[in-house]
Amino acid sequence: MIPEGFLFSAVNSGIKPEKPFDLGLIFVPEGAVAWGVFTRNTVKAAPVILGKKILQKHSVVKGILANSGVANACTGKEGLEAAQKVLEAVQRILNIPSGALLPASTGVIGDPLPVEKIIKSLPELIKGLSPERAKDFAQAITTTDTFPKIVQKTFQGVNILGIAKGAGMIAPNMATMLAFICTDAILERSWLKKALSKMVESTFNSISVDEDTSTNDTVYFLASCKRKVKNLSGFRKACEEVMRELAYLIVKDGEGATKVIRVLVKGARKKQEARELARAIATSLLVKTAFYGGDPNWGRIFAAMGKTGIPFQPERVELFLNEIPWIKNLTLVTEERILVEEMKKEEVTLTVHLKKGRARAEFLSSDLTEEYIRINAHYRT
Amino acid sequence: MIPEGFLFSAVNSGIKPEKPFDLGLIFVPEGAVAWGVFTRNTVKAAPVILGKKILQKHSVVKGILANSGVANACTGKEGLEAAQKVLEAVQRILNIPSGALLPASTGVIGDPLPVEKIIKSLPELIKGLSPERAKDFAQAITTTDTFPKIVQKTFQGVNILGIAKGAGMIAPNMATMLAFICTDAILERSWLKKALSKMVESTFNSISVDEDTSTNDTVYFLASCKRKVKNLSGFRKACEEVMRELAYLIVKDGEGATKVIRVLVKGARKKQEARELARAIATSLLVKTAFYGGDPNWGRIFAAMGKTGIPFQPERVELFLNEIPWIKNLTLVTEERILVEEMKKEEVTLTVHLKKGRARAEFLSSDLTEEYIRINAHYRT
Repeated sequence: MIPEGFLFSAVNSGIKPEKPFDLGLIFVPEGAVAWGVFTRNTVKAAPVILGKKILQKHSVVKGILANSGVANACTGKEGLEAAQKVLEAVQRILNIPSGALLPASTGVIGDPLPVEKIIKSLPELIKGLSPERAKDFAQAITTTDTFPKIVQKTFQGVNILGIAKGAGMIAPNMATMLAFICTDAILERSWLKKALSKMVESTFNSISVDEDTSTNDTVYFLASCKRKVKNLSGFRKACEEVMRELAYLIVKDGEGATKVIRVLVKGARKKQEARELARAIATSLLVKTAFYGGDPNWGRIFAAMGKTGIPFQPERVELFLNEIPWIKNLTLVTEERILVEEMKKEEVTLTVHLKKGRARAEFLSSDLTEEYIRINAHYRT
Repeated sequence: MIPEGFLFSAVNSGIKPEKPFDLGLIFVPEGAVAWGVFTRNTVKAAPVILGKKILQKHSVVKGILANSGVANACTGKEGLEAAQKVLEAVQRILNIPSGALLPASTGVIGDPLPVEKIIKSLPELIKGLSPERAKDFAQAITTTDTFPKIVQKTFQGVNILGIAKGAGMIAPNMATMLAFICTDAILERSWLKKALSKMVESTFNSISVDEDTSTNDTVYFLASCKRKVKNLSGFRKACEEVMRELAYLIVKDGEGATKVIRVLVKGARKKQEARELARAIATSLLVKTAFYGGDPNWGRIFAAMGKTGIPFQPERVELFLNEIPWIKNLTLVTEERILVEEMKKEEVTLTVHLKKGRARAEFLSSDLTEEYIRINAHYRT
């Protein structure tokens, strides 16, 4: 079920005429406890700067206005004013106070936000609000995405709905461009502040398409506080699950990707080491192209691990491909043609066992294909 | 002129039957003062481990044996023994002491060194030694390279010859796979030890094709001590020039590359900051694909800089493309069609002026194309 208290809408405001929708609104008439985490890129888009400010002042908000096509990043003071202007226009029509709405944008960096187009389409946007239109909203925030990303879950009567976008400029430093988590759970804001960063770390911050960190990455979490949560840690797990599934969908929709590569590093001494090694493997262009080509060229995996500088003994490391033993004591232990077949699957799990300790970490990546190049050599919208 | 005292040879030993040569020898009958710098990858190939050891024990060597096709990396004890075995065989035939030759290998990681094939071809290899065959040697060490890389310079009567190979698995941590600098200069070893690391830093360590650091990266520097150097700092600059040209050739031959991208960051407060920013821009897949596509999408440059976490004010940053003003105060200052034309050139210089201080750094990169993917999805030899 859609979380109680949430309304969604979407229109085409003319920013991207070829898309069904390019502007979306989430409205929570009775308000929602809110928190957000943002890109760590030094260059922060106007909606990121503004969204942070709003959440510092206000613990309850009434919704989110999001657009695709224009990132409103590298737009200076004018960009901030433009973001503020469109929020104020929505607030005026909805008759809600200033600071009640959060902004989010995604698209080309450097282009100005088309304020007039957006303002002109607001009456239609607001008229269209309905609990049933989350999918249209999800569609409105896509850019190079090939499908809208929605995940829904109900945990002990509490509803969670996650919406995300992202396919390129995806790197593990607040990884998706945009994600919105809506729930009707009754939550304290202090809990939300602590829990959100942790949930993001193992989900959106553990994926990569191209190691490029966006200027607009944002995760907003809104709780309309309608339903009691009996088991808070179970609820947190359910939220994390929603975010993990969204993160998975982003990698699956990675620009040009033909498969999801799940890299699991285990047997490390420290979590941080496991994470760094998993990341180094998952983001190596040579590993990503080998998986694309279905070539079990394991030397590239060792070389990628080695460039982290983390000490390990190559002789002790064991590799598994979809749980099939692959390398032990630097020797192939399964016939290559079997491994080649495994690599052709749409989802491939590479397990690296270091045999040093008990820490582990997982990282999701996509393969790197000619199509990624094509999209990004010519992509501007 | 070829540096005095150096002989070169090359044969096809059968490792890569389709190539004219796959095994090369540099021989300095009267010996050469030698030093080397190696990959910082935790996973070190057998020839790297062995070469380091030899240079710690011996300050004078008599040459280098190098092969392509097999990297002799991730091959454990057997790999070390194999590397030693082939060196000993050459030393026996040449009647020179143990430890007189340095090893180098490049090619597929994980495959064993074909000791027998190499040993069988040694008589022919040694018979072929001549001062005229540096080019054949350069050819013998190529892998995905599309041309052999040789640079020659004479500085005040002293000759310098540089040979390198490399096209993929190129990242700025001792960046080329193999480079050999030969000179007939009379040099102290202590000077060489200090100078080599510095020269490598601004040349081979300032390039990237794909951010993947090899397990085999090696630069050997051999001085046959035949000619007096009057101006040591001038000589050092000449050596650095040879290495810079080799580094340039590696990027120019970057797998699938259509152009060299020269990223110059100036006006930084510290050299290290300039270097890190230049590297972040030069290695961003989105920047590389934008240059490939001839798309002056400058937002990607700002986003790449921002992911370093280094503070800067986007409003103050100025961009230039081949010295044409591009972005000032976040605004396009030249017609886009002019920039598009500039981007089409085979060598493009992007200058980023931070306006914070006086430090600067340059980084060379190649564009990223469908061909890189094709080569690496299917490359195994």
